[in-house]
Amino acid sequence: MNINFFHLVFFLLTPMSAFASSESHVAPLLPFLIVIFIAAKIGGILFEKIHQPAVLGELIFGVILGNIAFLTGNSIDFFEPMKNEGFLNIISEIGIIILLFQVGLETKLSSMLKVGISSLSVAVVGVAFPFVLGCFLSSFLHWGDTPITNIYVGATLTATSVGITARVLQDLKKIDLNESRIVLGAAVIDDVIGLVILAVVTALAMNISQGFEISLSSVILINTTKAVLFLVGAIFLGRLLAPYILNLTKRLKIEGMSLIMALIFAFALAYMASLIGLHVIVGAFAAGLILEEAHFEGFHHHQNLESIIKPLSHFFVPPFFVLIGMQVSLSVFSNTTVVLMAILLTVVAVFGKVVAGLGAFGKNVDRMSIGIGMIPRGEVGLIFAKLGLDTGIVDQNIYSAVIVMVMATTFITPALLKWSFSRKQSN
Amino acid sequence: MNINFFHLVFFLLTPMSAFASSESHVAPLLPFLIVIFIAAKIGGILFEKIHQPAVLGELIFGVILGNIAFLTGNSIDFFEPMKNEGFLNIISEIGIIILLFQVGLETKLSSMLKVGISSLSVAVVGVAFPFVLGCFLSSFLHWGDTPITNIYVGATLTATSVGITARVLQDLKKIDLNESRIVLGAAVIDDVIGLVILAVVTALAMNISQGFEISLSSVILINTTKAVLFLVGAIFLGRLLAPYILNLTKRLKIEGMSLIMALIFAFALAYMASLIGLHVIVGAFAAGLILEEAHFEGFHHHQNLESIIKPLSHFFVPPFFVLIGMQVSLSVFSNTTVVLMAILLTVVAVFGKVVAGLGAFGKNVDRMSIGIGMIPRGEVGLIFAKLGLDTGIVDQNIYSAVIVMVMATTFITPALLKWSFSRKQSN
Repeated sequence: MNINFFHLVFFLLTPMSAFASSESHVAPLLPFLIVIFIAAKIGGILFEKIHQPAVLGELIFGVILGNIAFLTGNSIDFFEPMKNEGFLNIISEIGIIILLFQVGLETKLSSMLKVGISSLSVAVVGVAFPFVLGCFLSSFLHWGDTPITNIYVGATLTATSVGITARVLQDLKKIDLNESRIVLGAAVIDDVIGLVILAVVTALAMNISQGFEISLSSVILINTTKAVLFLVGAIFLGRLLAPYILNLTKRLKIEGMSLIMALIFAFALAYMASLIGLHVIVGAFAAGLILEEAHFEGFHHHQNLESIIKPLSHFFVPPFFVLIGMQVSLSVFSNTTVVLMAILLTVVAVFGKVVAGLGAFGKNVDRMSIGIGMIPRGEVGLIFAKLGLDTGIVDQNIYSAVIVMVMATTFITPALLKWSFSRKQSN
Repeated sequence: MNINFFHLVFFLLTPMSAFASSESHVAPLLPFLIVIFIAAKIGGILFEKIHQPAVLGELIFGVILGNIAFLTGNSIDFFEPMKNEGFLNIISEIGIIILLFQVGLETKLSSMLKVGISSLSVAVVGVAFPFVLGCFLSSFLHWGDTPITNIYVGATLTATSVGITARVLQDLKKIDLNESRIVLGAAVIDDVIGLVILAVVTALAMNISQGFEISLSSVILINTTKAVLFLVGAIFLGRLLAPYILNLTKRLKIEGMSLIMALIFAFALAYMASLIGLHVIVGAFAAGLILEEAHFEGFHHHQNLESIIKPLSHFFVPPFFVLIGMQVSLSVFSNTTVVLMAILLTVVAVFGKVVAGLGAFGKNVDRMSIGIGMIPRGEVGLIFAKLGLDTGIVDQNIYSAVIVMVMATTFITPALLKWSFSRKQSN
């Protein structure tokens, strides 16, 4: 045979992979999905074996994946490309939307409204107290030259990130408790307050950097109104429309119809929430609440909505928590100043929210579990920190410390919540 | 209040959306998902009402969405960004992987092997005959100056794209028929032959453009060996390992475990197939076949694998067909030369595969349905055309005509297949 061996090898390898990539967008991503699923399942199984919520295992196996190069001293990080892969981020955000939609489906709106005052009180205390503590800490230790830095540090401690708590409540099958409803309600109100605070600190930053003259009172008023109108409007309109939608779905008898209708509904409310400036998960949770109500009113399907959403949540939800873990950079812990600042911030963050649990009304309410459920901070805190960093209001050390605080509150919650609920049961 | 109104409006609108995008990757994509789901469901419902496969409705509503600007004479195309949105393409490719995995789960390997000779015969006739017809057509009408153009035109007509047929068989609940197994087997063999032809035409193009001296016989030999080794190896190793994996899954009793294990398995085989140069769906189909077998051997789960995969397929599969529809550009039909060439190509494409159906052995086999099931051409044909265009072997007219032929074969199959199966039943 008359072959130039080199050309043949070149030809056999190159064009195939070149075509494979032009032909298939998904092929190069499949190993990422496989790695994430394996990490999520091994982490989940191991942590369930030691009687911890599966989500903690997913987080920790995420950290291990994301820091393999750091942990092994290897210079090549195989999993580095995964951290910024847009597709995985989108999958994981769909996951958190589906998770909160699912939690909404398991939650009765009427029972939520019954504990509404408790939720409001927990939310307000849980924003005000950590804010004041954070301002005081930053001011006492002179972290910033201007009072506005202290306000920023306080702001990063305010907003609860309900994803972790919702998932733990689901893992522990506790969504039905009054305590869970209070936490979920408070987290929604927290997000509204967070939106207002975001508007205020943005206004502060813009007033400083661009000399705008914006009245803070009007900023607060307009954003609160927008958010409250959205929530009330969505829930009332939704409750009006949902029965008709579900009834139509039922009459059409198309396979998969109720699943897709429910998802369209959840995505639509999530999108509208994001337009207002609220987190997408607030809209998804509202969608779940509304459909639960419509179900409850006698439009129950032959196939239960919760059960057909489960496989989707098994696909989409674990990547969210594995990716959160992967974003954690263990190298931050080598800076002692940052670690010390982070410890102080975390103590304040935990203490502030545990105290907020005392804001709940009623007898036989486990205020400790409520407070613990409110501990996790998330993206909103990071957004404040990033905004502060970009405008020069907070420095790199404070920024890194906030990141560590967000990690810490995320990672301690599953075990604390598990302990707190079991402590109550043994009483 | 001391507000500069313009600044306030600017502030209220800009930072929120700026944060919304930095905070959420998925929010701007939610409207796309909603539009796709709505189009898929309306299309599906309407076409089921007129007793046609739902997939045809999804395709046609995709075409409408993708050509709204063209159809309404509007200069702004709201849906244009969707066509090239990487995320939607990835979602839809996961959809086709899940679809073929599902079809594999519904197919018995042993029954496939029983009709293996028929599949091989249908595949070989179905590649050879359209190839010869295509070459002859191109040569007779002088579409190219060199014989190699005729070879390229022939090559675009060879490979069956089994996605449409698999979906129609599923819609019509006909996966269990011998005819369906013959078509599925033939499509897999077709993909192997397609891989070899791709290697050959690439070698031809490279020999022409870069003066390489590659022996075609060795190219054919190496690629056939790779593909056959992959399929045989995957199925034998898989059959060996699958029972242990399923047994482990069963013992662990983790919720969602069998779903995720099955998906990991399907994605892994799909990825390996893509590394060899085969289509990802060949790997996914093989994975389905293997797990069906393992199930059959007594490792049946308390919850049926097919039923927990269904919600995922409701989510991922319709976008694939809606997006195929959206990629169709109706403006191509304004070029009469292209339309005439396309009609000739389509006639040859349909006739060639219907004749291939005669290759099936056995009594009481509906050869017409088998031939029709093999009609759809897909990406592989488009890849040949693109390669020919890039190397100057085929001109823009031939390229456009091939695209129209691919569309036409895709769009006529659902109705033809439905007709063909009902014709057989009424006998």
